[in-house]
Amino acid sequence: MVDIEVIAVGGYNEVGRNMTAVRVGKEIVIFDIGLYLDPITGNNNVDMENMHSLDLIQMGAIPDDTVMNSVEGTVKAIVCTHGHLDHIGAIQKLAHRYNCPIISTPYTNELIKQQIEGERKFSVMNKTFALKAGGKYTISQNLTLEFVRVQHSIIDSVMAVLHTPVGCVVYANDFKFDMTPVIGEAPDLARMREIGKEGVKVLIVESLNLDDRGYSPSEQVARLRVRDAIMRCEDDKNAIIVSTFASQIARIKTITECAREIDRIPVLLGRSMERYNTTAEILKQVAFPQGTSIYGNRKTTDRMLRRVLKEGKDKFLLVATGHQGEPGSMLSRIALGETPLKIERGDKVMFSANIIPNPTNYAQRAEVDRLLMRQGARIFDGLHVTGHAYYQEHYDLLSMLNPEHIIPSHGPFAMKGGYVALGSEFGYTLNKEVHIMQNGDRLVLPK
Amino acid sequence: MVDIEVIAVGGYNEVGRNMTAVRVGKEIVIFDIGLYLDPITGNNNVDMENMHSLDLIQMGAIPDDTVMNSVEGTVKAIVCTHGHLDHIGAIQKLAHRYNCPIISTPYTNELIKQQIEGERKFSVMNKTFALKAGGKYTISQNLTLEFVRVQHSIIDSVMAVLHTPVGCVVYANDFKFDMTPVIGEAPDLARMREIGKEGVKVLIVESLNLDDRGYSPSEQVARLRVRDAIMRCEDDKNAIIVSTFASQIARIKTITECAREIDRIPVLLGRSMERYNTTAEILKQVAFPQGTSIYGNRKTTDRMLRRVLKEGKDKFLLVATGHQGEPGSMLSRIALGETPLKIERGDKVMFSANIIPNPTNYAQRAEVDRLLMRQGARIFDGLHVTGHAYYQEHYDLLSMLNPEHIIPSHGPFAMKGGYVALGSEFGYTLNKEVHIMQNGDRLVLPK
Amino acid sequence: MVDIEVIAVGGYNEVGRNMTAVRVGKEIVIFDIGLYLDPITGNNNVDMENMHSLDLIQMGAIPDDTVMNSVEGTVKAIVCTHGHLDHIGAIQKLAHRYNCPIISTPYTNELIKQQIEGERKFSVMNKTFALKAGGKYTISQNLTLEFVRVQHSIIDSVMAVLHTPVGCVVYANDFKFDMTPVIGEAPDLARMREIGKEGVKVLIVESLNLDDRGYSPSEQVARLRVRDAIMRCEDDKNAIIVSTFASQIARIKTITECAREIDRIPVLLGRSMERYNTTAEILKQVAFPQGTSIYGNRKTTDRMLRRVLKEGKDKFLLVATGHQGEPGSMLSRIALGETPLKIERGDKVMFSANIIPNPTNYAQRAEVDRLLMRQGARIFDGLHVTGHAYYQEHYDLLSMLNPEHIIPSHGPFAMKGGYVALGSEFGYTLNKEVHIMQNGDRLVLPK
Amino acid sequence: MVDIEVIAVGGYNEVGRNMTAVRVGKEIVIFDIGLYLDPITGNNNVDMENMHSLDLIQMGAIPDDTVMNSVEGTVKAIVCTHGHLDHIGAIQKLAHRYNCPIISTPYTNELIKQQIEGERKFSVMNKTFALKAGGKYTISQNLTLEFVRVQHSIIDSVMAVLHTPVGCVVYANDFKFDMTPVIGEAPDLARMREIGKEGVKVLIVESLNLDDRGYSPSEQVARLRVRDAIMRCEDDKNAIIVSTFASQIARIKTITECAREIDRIPVLLGRSMERYNTTAEILKQVAFPQGTSIYGNRKTTDRMLRRVLKEGKDKFLLVATGHQGEPGSMLSRIALGETPLKIERGDKVMFSANIIPNPTNYAQRAEVDRLLMRQGARIFDGLHVTGHAYYQEHYDLLSMLNPEHIIPSHGPFAMKGGYVALGSEFGYTLNKEVHIMQNGDRLVLPK
Repeated sequence: MVDIEVIAVGGYNEVGRNMTAVRVGKEIVIFDIGLYLDPITGNNNVDMENMHSLDLIQMGAIPDDTVMNSVEGTVKAIVCTHGHLDHIGAIQKLAHRYNCPIISTPYTNELIKQQIEGERKFSVMNKTFALKAGGKYTISQNLTLEFVRVQHSIIDSVMAVLHTPVGCVVYANDFKFDMTPVIGEAPDLARMREIGKEGVKVLIVESLNLDDRGYSPSEQVARLRVRDAIMRCEDDKNAIIVSTFASQIARIKTITECAREIDRIPVLLGRSMERYNTTAEILKQVAFPQGTSIYGNRKTTDRMLRRVLKEGKDKFLLVATGHQGEPGSMLSRIALGETPLKIERGDKVMFSANIIPNPTNYAQRAEVDRLLMRQGARIFDGLHVTGHAYYQEHYDLLSMLNPEHIIPSHGPFAMKGGYVALGSEFGYTLNKEVHIMQNGDRLVLPK
Repeated sequence: MVDIEVIAVGGYNEVGRNMTAVRVGKEIVIFDIGLYLDPITGNNNVDMENMHSLDLIQMGAIPDDTVMNSVEGTVKAIVCTHGHLDHIGAIQKLAHRYNCPIISTPYTNELIKQQIEGERKFSVMNKTFALKAGGKYTISQNLTLEFVRVQHSIIDSVMAVLHTPVGCVVYANDFKFDMTPVIGEAPDLARMREIGKEGVKVLIVESLNLDDRGYSPSEQVARLRVRDAIMRCEDDKNAIIVSTFASQIARIKTITECAREIDRIPVLLGRSMERYNTTAEILKQVAFPQGTSIYGNRKTTDRMLRRVLKEGKDKFLLVATGHQGEPGSMLSRIALGETPLKIERGDKVMFSANIIPNPTNYAQRAEVDRLLMRQGARIFDGLHVTGHAYYQEHYDLLSMLNPEHIIPSHGPFAMKGGYVALGSEFGYTLNKEVHIMQNGDRLVLPK
Repeated sequence: MVDIEVIAVGGYNEVGRNMTAVRVGKEIVIFDIGLYLDPITGNNNVDMENMHSLDLIQMGAIPDDTVMNSVEGTVKAIVCTHGHLDHIGAIQKLAHRYNCPIISTPYTNELIKQQIEGERKFSVMNKTFALKAGGKYTISQNLTLEFVRVQHSIIDSVMAVLHTPVGCVVYANDFKFDMTPVIGEAPDLARMREIGKEGVKVLIVESLNLDDRGYSPSEQVARLRVRDAIMRCEDDKNAIIVSTFASQIARIKTITECAREIDRIPVLLGRSMERYNTTAEILKQVAFPQGTSIYGNRKTTDRMLRRVLKEGKDKFLLVATGHQGEPGSMLSRIALGETPLKIERGDKVMFSANIIPNPTNYAQRAEVDRLLMRQGARIFDGLHVTGHAYYQEHYDLLSMLNPEHIIPSHGPFAMKGGYVALGSEFGYTLNKEVHIMQNGDRLVLPK
Repeated sequence: MVDIEVIAVGGYNEVGRNMTAVRVGKEIVIFDIGLYLDPITGNNNVDMENMHSLDLIQMGAIPDDTVMNSVEGTVKAIVCTHGHLDHIGAIQKLAHRYNCPIISTPYTNELIKQQIEGERKFSVMNKTFALKAGGKYTISQNLTLEFVRVQHSIIDSVMAVLHTPVGCVVYANDFKFDMTPVIGEAPDLARMREIGKEGVKVLIVESLNLDDRGYSPSEQVARLRVRDAIMRCEDDKNAIIVSTFASQIARIKTITECAREIDRIPVLLGRSMERYNTTAEILKQVAFPQGTSIYGNRKTTDRMLRRVLKEGKDKFLLVATGHQGEPGSMLSRIALGETPLKIERGDKVMFSANIIPNPTNYAQRAEVDRLLMRQGARIFDGLHVTGHAYYQEHYDLLSMLNPEHIIPSHGPFAMKGGYVALGSEFGYTLNKEVHIMQNGDRLVLPK
């Protein structure tokens, strides 16, 4: 019988640069190769596109996959569960070391291809393969990959299930069980229950929100709140600027639809807005209301803003990058008066995003808020819901999958305590069935 | 021309025991006579029904209305804007000192009458008068009272507007601008705008949530979250217990309706559940789904719980008191094993309430949670929204009313800082138009 | 060669009920048998003295030592490192199950004997043996116990070192490296370095304050702050009441000496004050200034307080129990007006203690503070330092001992994260050399 | 009889840019003209030395003294109580508008002169006058200024007392009642009591630390902690770098003395280190141990660091700027590897400073800490005490001065709540005797 080994490459000491390798006998599958932004955020001189992977590893910005050198086996596939940077953002730096295809859902696949195209240092020749949620992919005689539909704060997210001769390996990063999503269908719990019955050898699972009791709020809650805030502006003459994650396509759909409801033209502004949303549109994963326009670069965005000034702020609703106060983002530039649009008293700036907890983000957002408020802007905050499951969703997950082993991932040591507590509710014991790993650790599962 | 004096009797140093008197010439109107629970919560020996008002004043539990002795004028009316205890809970102790009617909305009026009936120390002979939201009441030649519809965490809440020869006195405790409420209609903003045009001399206004930016979430958000949590239990065999504020009729309506959707019989348990909800039903302000039953005292609740055991936990959904961990409440008794219902692994306890911030509440709730979890209960928390307006709702309020003077109320000194900041956005100056008062203070408004 | 197994009996999921067993071949040594107060604090009906150990285990109040039934070997000794209840407080309930002596420092030994005498349910026949800091005790041919001097918030605290044929087992609960203590000598770092050179197989070590960077403040800091607060009262006519941990003998020595400096008679009040301090005096481990008196029971304390009233509050300085707001403590009784001493405006109440983090303590202390302040007392808070080492003291410890294995103890899972991080600074790897255990876990150390 | 008017120019909405004017009849005295760093910190492009005051006013960085235009009277003196930038840092931008001398203590006076010399935009011709603590200065027939000795986190700090025909105006920004200071004598409480008896018309007083109960810790506590941390390094071979406020002369004295105790040469590094400490030395207000050297500019500091490398890190103790992670500071440069000194494993970096609460500071310090720790540095934090009085020191202040009126200053609205509460303990009433002012407010004191 083949043995299974889990190699915790990245994302086990931090929230970011996720990468987990699973060896089944002599065959290896890699899940996610992501980026960790923190070591880069505070550092203005990083030119990532031209940097060597070893330097980025040394900075702590990408997974240290040198551990893979000592793992005996052949990497057969790289699998990405969704398109966030902390899951795909280092592919262009590391994938070329592995002679294997990169498998992901269609939307994720497009983002990965763009990632690879933008790379300046390495040429990445891996094939990319788009596997739909619900689909299966035969990796080898022994290994079949299956994508099970979940929900997350980006479209086309899946739970990856690796069928092996000794049971399933379930990689559940990142997910929430949103039963009333805004885009796509609810997570496929029925399939999860079946997989649970087939037998799960090990569950590798995020551990971000275990401290939050209950279920995470549905995207419908964000929709309700965003809609409420926008609908009250029906008679407003002021500007409305909404900032949200560029990759949060469902949210942006909501925002653009609400814009139309109050007869404003939705305009998406900013480079990442353009990239994520145009890609989603092309793949027909979202349809924005007619008249929605998207502008990415400084020239086109500023031209659009001049048009806004000319035709009237009350004719448009702007969806802009910059919710983390990122220097150079649309909102930062607006706050600093670097665009044609000047903030006036009563203009509304809505944040449909949380601040990603990190001192630099707090500082940059505080500065943007201060500048906006000085100019008379009205700030609306908190029109957001998380994309990560809460405690009771993980409870349901364990109930359905009934795994033999659990490896909490995606976060530092302390965060995993939630899974130790949850596991103990089901009779799992730390170190026997619940395994706490750190970056670089390897664990051969007991048979 | 008559002068206007505002007397801050209670609720200006704390969140509780609200009472404000407004003297217009020789005539006085009192707004609210409420209770402050904190000095009582930590003290097991308080038998409030039999206590003298002076002792309760000395404890700090009810407003110190001895300041009224020195105010020259006649109290013409006591006006209550809604039925929460911090607004009506000391009426039975103080109203008899004033020879005047007590005016409130129909639901509030019933609660006040019950309050008076339960009193053992004083006999309160004041007439009570039910004035509907939107209605007017002529207090005297000079004074007319108007109730403007708002929303709050209890039904039948209003903003009180006192029309005087020198402009309106607006008493806005407590409210939120929920534009998509679950019971009743949205706040009457049109009327507020009119009143603003007629001229508002002074706005007396709560200042609880000014630190929260944006708009407060609609009750629809709570509905969505409660419904989501309950709907997921469709195939559960476990008990479902939901605890919420007994006076939160809209929430209880939501809960009972969701119970029916998953074919469970809703049962309301606990003395205050019975009082608030039966009263609302009798007044036809709410209609619970058919089959909903309500039990108040220990004998009937425990008999009901025996029936639950017999017929199956999965046949019922229990709505229970005890979200603050109050000793003697339904949930505390269940947690302690003092009822026929025993908690088993997988039973769900949902809290559709926040913990009212106070060390005793935190301690008591922590103990209830600990006991429930030891017995295997699954805790769902945070299925709740506030009943108090956020910063931007107050911004809208000021925009509509355009008052000459602002007196932030309902909270200690520091809480009022939000109104100083907000006021300054509109050009109001501290001490000139924004007045910070403390319990016992009197302020004659500049003409 | 003998093998070493560590059994995590209690204190690995919580801060409290510490108990660790170490099996060396066929011989077992137990370190600490402590109490966990939290499950008892919130529960008024616990009569611990008359309770059976199995009931206390079921409540979670004492270590669940049933795991010991399956450990093959003979318990040769119970070793306690200091006299706090979370280390010795369950001896009277569990020690009789083991036919072996209880070894501890002289002061700890006296407290253990009192503990056993007060027991009503079990008769504990174990011999007790007092071993001085710096001393050794031959447990068996293979095992020798050594006590190395440390400092902690109670006098006569040691680090226990078990010399075995395969290296030392170091049990370091609880300690700080206070190099300028108020009572006793500084920790014996020289001996620790020697032990490190002899070879440490495993270090079992508290993990409470790893989040605090630097070194913990010396008791001299507390002395400075207490002295400063008291010396400023030189000309005061008001009462001075200082509340501190009854077992914090060094602090009480400081307080009583400062009392004398401003010509006040120090009076210790409260049952635990009497127990811990009289014991320390009898053992000559402390000498309080002449004239210091101690009263334990209600009759004598209240008689003393009447004398204070008669002779003048400014003649005395009272050292009282009650810093956690415990019901029935001296300070609670004073706050409630249940003693002859009435608080008047300007009376000073000084807290030379932290609030032990727990919702019940916060609630009870808040209520005592509220009552005292209502009566005009001036509250002085924070005249305290911790008894537990900070991050850099643990760094020094690792530098000196250079252990093969590390087992962080004394706290829940998340708290141990500090030791994972610290360990990684020294090249220790999680699960290989740093072992995270939970109550009931057993670990045979790799050879 | 003359009337007294207080004009709150700056520092009443924020902690920074302090400036208060007091008009006594036709004569005006200005207290402090300070800088507010927050609007500048987040903004890299500010070249303050060349900026116009009106632009700095518009940014919110310096007091908006245009309010002074409408005050009828002649400014007779500018008085500064100590040399921190939030009290003297805008003198060079605003003082030239007033034809009067600038009076301050000798050390403060030197700093002001340097401030003026560095100015590039305005030429400031005001005379500066050094008045020692305890001294008096006759401003006019009606007005005499007196400096009463206090303690603060910079040497030569005083409370300013303006004797007027209708009583004293006491300006108490900033102070603590450190009765056991490290440099200088304890505050002159005896003189304060006398002034209280002479009669205090109004007390203008900081309100920063009212939430902290008890007394603020003495500088001796910081000394104890710094000394403890340094003394433990006696046998270390590693670098020791201590960062503290450059103006905290007493702390730096402590650090340099401790360096000598372990036979290391103290070296002060950084521009502000040089400025504040050389000035203090020249004025003979401090004597550093023999051999202490100070280097300000990049060339000399880096030359010194090369010498450190050559002669051995263990021969020196470096006192460096950069505790707030300021870009360009010594510590930031060291952390970034921009100096000859490379951090190695075990090098110690001690922070004898708090992080000034502000998102930018938190972010910058976090980044410096991260960089240092990556290189193996050991971080020691919290070796610091505040320079601002706690609640009970303010209690003592009120007891001694017994002022007719109180104006809390130096902080935003909410911070002043502490003085409302404290005042009420003495029978002061909000708006009657305790006055809450905002920037730009004017208050004529009732007679």
